[in-house]
Amino acid sequence: VPKPVLDHGFVRMIDYMGDDAAICQAARVSYGRGTKSVQNDEGLIRYLMRHWHSTPFEMCELKLHVKLPVFVARQWIRHRMANVNEYSARYSILDREFYIPRAEDLAAQSRQNNQGRGDVLGAEESARVLDWLREDAHRAYDHYEAMISDDGQQGVARELARMNLPANIYTQWYWKVDLHNLFHFLRLRADSHAQYEIRVYADAICEMVKDWVPAAYRAFEEYRLGGVTLSASGV
Amino acid sequence: VPKPVLDHGFVRMIDYMGDDAAICQAARVSYGRGTKSVQNDEGLIRYLMRHWHSTPFEMCELKLHVKLPVFVARQWIRHRMANVNEYSARYSILDREFYIPRAEDLAAQSRQNNQGRGDVLGAEESARVLDWLREDAHRAYDHYEAMISDDGQQGVARELARMNLPANIYTQWYWKVDLHNLFHFLRLRADSHAQYEIRVYADAICEMVKDWVPAAYRAFEEYRLGGVTLSASGV
Amino acid sequence: VPKPVLDHGFVRMIDYMGDDAAICQAARVSYGRGTKSVQNDEGLIRYLMRHWHSTPFEMCELKLHVKLPVFVARQWIRHRMANVNEYSARYSILDREFYIPRAEDLAAQSRQNNQGRGDVLGAEESARVLDWLREDAHRAYDHYEAMISDDGQQGVARELARMNLPANIYTQWYWKVDLHNLFHFLRLRADSHAQYEIRVYADAICEMVKDWVPAAYRAFEEYRLGGVTLSASGV
Amino acid sequence: VPKPVLDHGFVRMIDYMGDDAAICQAARVSYGRGTKSVQNDEGLIRYLMRHWHSTPFEMCELKLHVKLPVFVARQWIRHRMANVNEYSARYSILDREFYIPRAEDLAAQSRQNNQGRGDVLGAEESARVLDWLREDAHRAYDHYEAMISDDGQQGVARELARMNLPANIYTQWYWKVDLHNLFHFLRLRADSHAQYEIRVYADAICEMVKDWVPAAYRAFEEYRLGGVTLSASGV
Ligand SMILES: Cc1cc2nc3c(=O)[nH]c(=O)nc-3n(C[C@H](O)[C@H](O)[C@H](O)COP(=O)(O)OP(=O)(O)OC[C@H]3O[C@@H](n4cnc5c(N)ncnc54)[C@H](O)[C@@H]3O)c2cc1C
Ligand SMILES: Cc1cc2nc3c(=O)[nH]c(=O)nc-3n(C[C@H](O)[C@H](O)[C@H](O)COP(=O)(O)OP(=O)(O)OC[C@H]3O[C@@H](n4cnc5c(N)ncnc54)[C@H](O)[C@@H]3O)c2cc1C
Ligand SMILES: Cc1cc2nc3c(=O)[nH]c(=O)nc-3n(C[C@H](O)[C@H](O)[C@H](O)COP(=O)(O)OP(=O)(O)OC[C@H]3O[C@@H](n4cnc5c(N)ncnc54)[C@H](O)[C@@H]3O)c2cc1C
Ligand SMILES: Cc1cc2nc3c(=O)[nH]c(=O)nc-3n(C[C@H](O)[C@H](O)[C@H](O)COP(=O)(O)OP(=O)(O)OC[C@H]3O[C@@H](n4cnc5c(N)ncnc54)[C@H](O)[C@@H]3O)c2cc1C
Repeated sequence: VPKPVLDHGFVRMIDYMGDDAAICQAARVSYGRGTKSVQNDEGLIRYLMRHWHSTPFEMCELKLHVKLPVFVARQWIRHRMANVNEYSARYSILDREFYIPRAEDLAAQSRQNNQGRGDVLGAEESARVLDWLREDAHRAYDHYEAMISDDGQQGVARELARMNLPANIYTQWYWKVDLHNLFHFLRLRADSHAQYEIRVYADAICEMVKDWVPAAYRAFEEYRLGGVTLSASGV
Repeated sequence: VPKPVLDHGFVRMIDYMGDDAAICQAARVSYGRGTKSVQNDEGLIRYLMRHWHSTPFEMCELKLHVKLPVFVARQWIRHRMANVNEYSARYSILDREFYIPRAEDLAAQSRQNNQGRGDVLGAEESARVLDWLREDAHRAYDHYEAMISDDGQQGVARELARMNLPANIYTQWYWKVDLHNLFHFLRLRADSHAQYEIRVYADAICEMVKDWVPAAYRAFEEYRLGGVTLSASGV
Repeated sequence: VPKPVLDHGFVRMIDYMGDDAAICQAARVSYGRGTKSVQNDEGLIRYLMRHWHSTPFEMCELKLHVKLPVFVARQWIRHRMANVNEYSARYSILDREFYIPRAEDLAAQSRQNNQGRGDVLGAEESARVLDWLREDAHRAYDHYEAMISDDGQQGVARELARMNLPANIYTQWYWKVDLHNLFHFLRLRADSHAQYEIRVYADAICEMVKDWVPAAYRAFEEYRLGGVTLSASGV
Repeated sequence: VPKPVLDHGFVRMIDYMGDDAAICQAARVSYGRGTKSVQNDEGLIRYLMRHWHSTPFEMCELKLHVKLPVFVARQWIRHRMANVNEYSARYSILDREFYIPRAEDLAAQSRQNNQGRGDVLGAEESARVLDWLREDAHRAYDHYEAMISDDGQQGVARELARMNLPANIYTQWYWKVDLHNLFHFLRLRADSHAQYEIRVYADAICEMVKDWVPAAYRAFEEYRLGGVTLSASGV
């Protein structure tokens, strides 16, 4: 079942390969008939995470179906160590579905952080913004439909007409990634510096990963999400 | 000097590493004091290209500064084997610059190819389309500016306001890639199946590469761009 | 069950993700409610292969356990788009197992091809070579054992002692790869230019892939293994 | 000029792209006409390193020529995000050059760390080990030469004969890598957990990088080499 995210988006698990035991199975190939008894699974996983022995985590793989606004997709796709098949707006017609933030997610530009948001907007300003977002999206989509229609005209190519559509329109893709690179994605995107709209996807995926590979997820929380790095001079 | 592409875009060479000789230098490390005399540079490069010995081409690197519409950037970024730094619409304010096709580039949806275009639009339809593209873009940008303004209001965060902007707005980035993967990009994007708007960038880059590594480019034309693959049963 | 390869090696399938249908499922996300009916699975897979639409093939993943001589491992590991966990000769003691070619695989240096072999060796020369290979390997291993022993001495570190061992000693690893990159590996390593000792591994994997994703494998044979590329001037 | 490493190895800088300023140039494309004045170069580089903004570091590239023992090459090659052209032992004849440790580098297996070394060996044991290493290497090479000779015999193919050679024989390659992935390599291989014989290469490269991109190297020392990570429960 798809996990809903934002107003029209979702994350749906399609398939996975491996589990906590598969991480250990791969790690243990290194130890062969090693002389020291190798610890239990949870201990081994913590050890691997702590020491950045990342290749055993690459032995697990997750495949998701995701529906997400284009501006979120533009951030997400920057993670190159993944496999993607996206809906083609050259081939197919995009749906009339736009991300329209809830009023409580409409925030002002942060004064401290140039790449972030600050206080929630007041009611009046918020209403004005939401009106613009809704109206512009729908007018753009009306014109998109009118352009591609072949009713009484030639109808412009879909690959051209879509350039009129705003960045909050939804797209979708299949996304497959190994667990090491997924943790890297989650560390960056479930973080407070990430934009709220991608963070909610990362949070939804965190829930899935916690169920799928509980020991690996605990180690990830302990050493990555919750960990703190001190600099040399801070030490 | 930047090479202009489309109405406001460009490709500008920032830096490069290596040249035809560097490809051969790396390939020849394999031959050591090999017993057979290794051929001249042009012959060696053709040999490497013909036999898919791709790693010596990875020894050259090109760094470009590119300005391009967002819908082109979305296709381009799918090439994962490259390094990218893009203008941040969270951090900075986007410029009021949109790709508006020339009338002769406004074509109808192809009847044969679902992912392509066919005949150029008639004058009347074309004018209608161009008006919509222009008006919608500028209205969206007016509202973008109005939303982020802190004049008499809080001003919504840039990372939110940008979702109102259409896919033909321009972005820019630094893009660095090795020559093997650049050829792979060019083969796919200078091809007739690629959308016209990315093809013109690929064509502009082809010109640069031809000057930079002429022998490698000739081999690329001979065995990739101009080559034809027959299937087993076609043979 | 492991598939035996060479005298002591094997390839064993540990796990896989996806199948022919999964390739199509991912490819079809692009077509959404596309206007033209998309062909059947076999036709679609052939289409994707023919047009180098490689990302849907990345949606399948194979995990193998492989035992192989070190000099084969050195060629294999050059394929970077894969995940690997190898037996550690720092941590563990290597087994006394060496690849000793069958007499019929002992061939002379090719006169035509600097990177290949020609005629099979005569019986006498062959016997001489095999004796050297066997004796040197066992002597090296005897000394390896003697060096690491802590019986009446300190015992040198395993990471040092292993430097005495020849390239025909066996190692093992878990190797995980997606289907697109696996086909790339197989095209290069099941090819007549590849060294016989890696080709037999590639051949064994081909058999597995044929069972696992029969339609994809047929398309691979048709357009890659059996295909022929003509150059521009050859066309 | 090549920097000597171990008894016959070296690291030689062939070419580079970019410098500290190039990192900043790429990072600043993100800020466009950003509203807040962006800090000086050193400060910006420290900021990027501290916050794992790794893509600007990918804008610099280093190309090295390295001569190294095979067992070191086997560890090194595991770093997939690099470009490599290695001497071919199928095509060419390997030189009679082996890494023979200095007596002070010959250490016993560590009792604490299964993947490491402990005390230096005593003089007698050390002499015994060095004799074996030298004798076995030279005998193996004598047989290698005898096998490939076509004097009065066919001469076995080089690709076969080389299987007799031990892991301390030297190979060489061109290795090209971007600065982000180079720092990742250095963090893992200049570390005390890395085997001494690869660490000395990492140390030699550190010296080069310090000269090439001094500000980036300082930030790397501060936040990676010298940094300490506390776990969530340790915080
Ligand atoms: C809060 C935040 C703000 C950001 N702001 C900006 C911005 O203003 N501008 C901008 O352009 N980006 C920005 N990014 C995106 C960022 O630069 C990365 O592109 C993104 O986080 C993906 O990280 P990655 O490269 O480590 O992941 P992946 O691409 O998945 O790579 C994982 C690792 O694999 C290796 N790798 C993968 N592919 C390659 C390759 N082709 N060459 C070399 N190594 C490779 C690298 O070691 C890399 O660390 C931002 C990201 C975050 C989280
Ligand atoms: C005409 C055309 C139509 C297209 N239509 C669609 C579409 O409808 N939907 C869609 O989603 N895409 C579409 N694409 C994009 C296409 O699927 C590829 O994403 C794009 O062409 C980049 O190709 P690449 O993956 O080979 O290149 P790169 O990402 O640069 O990779 C080069 C090679 O490196 C390897 N590689 C790199 N990264 C990885 C990784 N993380 N894992 C495994 N191997 C890796 C692979 O061997 C790959 O072939 C289309 C492309 C073209 C040219
Ligand atoms: C017959 C034969 C002879 C050979 N002889 C030699 C020799 O003499 N010397 C020698 O050094 N090698 C030799 N090789 C190895 C060869 O150079 C390749 O390393 C090997 O075939 C792997 O191919 P690949 O790089 O395409 O595969 P992968 O590493 O799996 O990469 C697949 C694709 O992903 C992309 N990619 C992956 N990683 C990166 C990265 N870090 N940067 C950029 N792009 C990346 C590229 O597009 C690449 O084509 C030989 C190979 C064969 C088959
Ligand atoms: C002290 C020490 C001990 C070790 N012991 C062992 C051992 O016993 N057994 C063993 O097998 N190895 C061992 N290794 C090697 C280790 O597992 C890594 O292979 C090596 O450190 C390279 O690290 P990397 O994968 O991060 O680097 P790179 O391969 O350069 O990759 C950099 C980053 O790019 C991404 N990436 C690159 N290629 C891919 C890909 N194809 N798919 C997905 N993501 C990719 C990942 O995010 C990766 O973190 C050891 C290493 C060290 C330092």
